[in-house]
Amino acid sequence: MIVFYDIPSKVPGKAWSPNTWKARFVLNFKGVPYKTEWIEFPDIEPRCKALEIPPTSTKADGAPFYTLPAIHDPTTGAYVSESLSIAEYLEKTYPDTPAVFPCNTLSLQAPFHLPFRAYLKVYFQFGVPAAHGVLNAPSAEYFRRTREASFGKTLEELLPQGDRAKEEWAKVQEGMGKVSQWYEKNGGKGPFLLGETASWADLFVASYLVYMRITWGEERQEWKEVMSWHGGQWRRLLEALEKYTTVH
Amino acid sequence: MIVFYDIPSKVPGKAWSPNTWKARFVLNFKGVPYKTEWIEFPDIEPRCKALEIPPTSTKADGAPFYTLPAIHDPTTGAYVSESLSIAEYLEKTYPDTPAVFPCNTLSLQAPFHLPFRAYLKVYFQFGVPAAHGVLNAPSAEYFRRTREASFGKTLEELLPQGDRAKEEWAKVQEGMGKVSQWYEKNGGKGPFLLGETASWADLFVASYLVYMRITWGEERQEWKEVMSWHGGQWRRLLEALEKYTTVH
Repeated sequence: MIVFYDIPSKVPGKAWSPNTWKARFVLNFKGVPYKTEWIEFPDIEPRCKALEIPPTSTKADGAPFYTLPAIHDPTTGAYVSESLSIAEYLEKTYPDTPAVFPCNTLSLQAPFHLPFRAYLKVYFQFGVPAAHGVLNAPSAEYFRRTREASFGKTLEELLPQGDRAKEEWAKVQEGMGKVSQWYEKNGGKGPFLLGETASWADLFVASYLVYMRITWGEERQEWKEVMSWHGGQWRRLLEALEKYTTVH
Repeated sequence: MIVFYDIPSKVPGKAWSPNTWKARFVLNFKGVPYKTEWIEFPDIEPRCKALEIPPTSTKADGAPFYTLPAIHDPTTGAYVSESLSIAEYLEKTYPDTPAVFPCNTLSLQAPFHLPFRAYLKVYFQFGVPAAHGVLNAPSAEYFRRTREASFGKTLEELLPQGDRAKEEWAKVQEGMGKVSQWYEKNGGKGPFLLGETASWADLFVASYLVYMRITWGEERQEWKEVMSWHGGQWRRLLEALEKYTTVH
């Protein structure tokens, strides 16, 4: 059974990270059996090194940078890190499961994260403080320290307040509006980019929706707004993928 | 027969603009009969207004901005501008022709221009002066004036020289390298993003290759380098699409 390495939190089900959700969605979508091993932020690097999980990029000082998600597949012996690489690995290794790159669309889907992240960058000033709020103590301290260094301000300074919060939230809606315009071109055949068929890019978008919902909770006003935006596009997408949000 | 509105130049065949090539490639790929009407840059706005061709965006002062490509289809009476909109129109109106959005991939292909242009932005300091060099006098004057205002420098200042030219050209190669990494994920089944099947995004990329070749000429050292880059990826792509580079 595949081992899936994820970062825990205080929420029921523990899973919260949009990046690990991308790979978890793929495992659930394909129905490949797996179990989760939870690793707090400060333990990711030593644990990955010990397991010989490959780093996903390099730090500013040139040292290898280790991130989750990662998987270990005892059947092949493979250790794979980074969500798209995991999706590619599972697609190749388990060809009889539902495809996340149907019609050989991997090459078309590979750059999807770039425009999506460009439009949704404005969300992170809300999402990073919200994520900090659900982490366990060892991860919360690590997350605050590294993110504050990265943004050059405290998490409290990062989170917009008052009128600026309204303005910045309107930009999130505008960014999601750009993404919804891509969805509107699907011929009205379903809630997915390819119409009736879910694929990697939908799971990618849904990972950010799940991240919002988990870190804010369903009663949060902003979450209710997201579910009403763009003719209910995001509500319909999440409803269609809800069955793949289980945590094993 | 469809009328295709394009911007002429001094090169054989006249067509040079990457934006109009995108739509011309689609017409050629689909085999939809058309004839070209050539419009010099200063005539685009008055001509589009007279024909009631819709503007494609707004200028800084809020006035409508008219650009080519555009088409007129006498069969339906439609006037359509902007290359992706033209591709969508032709795909819907002529469903029995080869699809440029096979497997209902329009929604997935719609954002392709964003990461491609982000990686290839560095090319325009070479490409804009090269384009200026092939335009007829009325367009050349207009093009120089508007592009110099946009870049805030003369075309001569825009074009990198000496060591900086080498550094900036290396960045173009690096950008195309990122794009080639998407192509490498196609399973090795052909020169296209979808493997064996050409689609909109391939025609999009090829439009910039044709633009380079036409404005520089095939004997230019940089063009020969492009054809050798990334294991011959761009040479193979262009060879596979060469039959769609005719000008009617």
